[in-house]
Amino acid sequence: MTEDELIDSIKRLCHASTRPSMTSVKLGIGDDAALWQPSRSHRSAISSDMLVEGVHFTLTAMSLEDVGWRAMAANVSDLAAIGARPVLATVALGIPPRMAPENVLRLYRGLANCAACSKIAIVGGDLSRDDTFTIAITVVGEVSASSAKLRSGGKPGNVLAVTGPLGASRAGLALSRHAERLGEELETTALEAFRRPRPRDGEGRFFAASRNVTAMIDCSDGLSTDVHRLAEASGCGAELDDIPVAAAAKAFAQQHGYDPYRFALAGGEDFELVVAVRPRAFQHLALRYAKRFGRPLYRIGVLREGSGVTWNGAPLERSGWDHFAKEAL
Amino acid sequence: MTEDELIDSIKRLCHASTRPSMTSVKLGIGDDAALWQPSRSHRSAISSDMLVEGVHFTLTAMSLEDVGWRAMAANVSDLAAIGARPVLATVALGIPPRMAPENVLRLYRGLANCAACSKIAIVGGDLSRDDTFTIAITVVGEVSASSAKLRSGGKPGNVLAVTGPLGASRAGLALSRHAERLGEELETTALEAFRRPRPRDGEGRFFAASRNVTAMIDCSDGLSTDVHRLAEASGCGAELDDIPVAAAAKAFAQQHGYDPYRFALAGGEDFELVVAVRPRAFQHLALRYAKRFGRPLYRIGVLREGSGVTWNGAPLERSGWDHFAKEAL
Repeated sequence: MTEDELIDSIKRLCHASTRPSMTSVKLGIGDDAALWQPSRSHRSAISSDMLVEGVHFTLTAMSLEDVGWRAMAANVSDLAAIGARPVLATVALGIPPRMAPENVLRLYRGLANCAACSKIAIVGGDLSRDDTFTIAITVVGEVSASSAKLRSGGKPGNVLAVTGPLGASRAGLALSRHAERLGEELETTALEAFRRPRPRDGEGRFFAASRNVTAMIDCSDGLSTDVHRLAEASGCGAELDDIPVAAAAKAFAQQHGYDPYRFALAGGEDFELVVAVRPRAFQHLALRYAKRFGRPLYRIGVLREGSGVTWNGAPLERSGWDHFAKEAL
Repeated sequence: MTEDELIDSIKRLCHASTRPSMTSVKLGIGDDAALWQPSRSHRSAISSDMLVEGVHFTLTAMSLEDVGWRAMAANVSDLAAIGARPVLATVALGIPPRMAPENVLRLYRGLANCAACSKIAIVGGDLSRDDTFTIAITVVGEVSASSAKLRSGGKPGNVLAVTGPLGASRAGLALSRHAERLGEELETTALEAFRRPRPRDGEGRFFAASRNVTAMIDCSDGLSTDVHRLAEASGCGAELDDIPVAAAAKAFAQQHGYDPYRFALAGGEDFELVVAVRPRAFQHLALRYAKRFGRPLYRIGVLREGSGVTWNGAPLERSGWDHFAKEAL
């Protein structure tokens, strides 16, 4: 199979998962560049992410379809975190010599399935030989100028909230590595959270539409790291006092004598959104959120004057997935 | 240096090379996504490329600044090939543990310098640990709907032309590997073509503005491969009869008893543009081109009915840089 033949197969696969409603894409895979018609009333948003085998994922813990799904989900989550509607993506792959073309297509199936869930068209990319299996994705989306939510808009007194319980993905990673048992339902939830995370793009657009949401970030790098980032960008400190821990993370931590809050604070890759909300508007926003999404919005603390983050009064370190802090560069 | 600290240095570097005239970018490096205001009257164009150490470049043949420059140039060239004006780029890096943060910044200097030459703002990206040094770039640009030039628009009878002599980059690669001598001027030209190629984005926009240019592609993968692609996409065959070989490639080939046309046909990475032009308009277009850019537009052959590509009457194989054909996938 030559590069052009593999690209033809990928093109067919991506075309099949693109809905006819995605009419803004005028030219997809196959030329030197792809073309689309951006919305006239919106700004465009872009985010790029690279995932590397052995650093961000391992094929012993999940299938190639899962790897593709998670890679796309991580990128969609970045657009969700700014409140944008994702529109299209490009995918550049570094493929080790041992990987058969069929496996490249398996990966693409995961990418395309996740993309289809968020109504994203995969419009282009690149295939390259590489010693390490590497996936680089760029997602482009749209958001109105007045709706985009930055990390930096938070104010002292704002309520901090998160869109779901945390730690399930970390528990799923542990389960997939060690064949631990938690009971079928919790296992399924944890493995699903780890292998097929749902990016919160609908939720991101819901928050973008509210003037009472002042700042937003996704907590893909672990809640503690990402709250640090939001607070710092906003020129604030943060006090956390109530963190929702996923049932699977709680169960796994109890079984092994770990602190369940470590899973929630440092686990990472949960892809929930963290928002800062004007305090007087929080109750009403949470109510509307619960009605719309059938899940509660979890209050986790407040922004305050100063700097630094505390958890139940004690200083909280940044401790999530910082690939450069963990590894000597 | 943590990831966030390195990102701060990169942010300063990219900001310094971004001109104030690039006002369409509303939010650059540092948040979950970057934001820009697309032109209301244009389509947006996107292209992604991945470059891998040992496959696309080696640090024995060029500096990190050169690697950065070439990586950006290759991406800009893809947008040039569709006639788009480049606007912004994201850069995702896979960085091996042995590489110091200072070297990451050196690479970024090359990326930013090339970006500045094409008036591109680097607005975001990702840093990741990786065993192989990997660079994934996405460039976004703009082109009016009626101006975009695809590979597929060529018609039988159209003149094929290329924007410059070919093979200099391949000669530069050979020179940098083997410390060959060609005389100072040719050496400089060849090494410059190899290490600091100039993407033809101005030329691409010139062709985009002409209704007589029916198809376009950049010949980054080698003229023979790329003419095959343009001809195939246009449902045509092609006859090549006159290929401009760069003086450095000619000299190097003569010294070593190689066929100089092999350098031009299969060398790759010259980043010149190949265009198909309505025959009656060619002379006038070439004249305007020469006046505008101070260089000739080289007629290399014609598109014809049927399929396949010939060179002086003999069938010409696809023989450029096809990473998958050359390496068992």
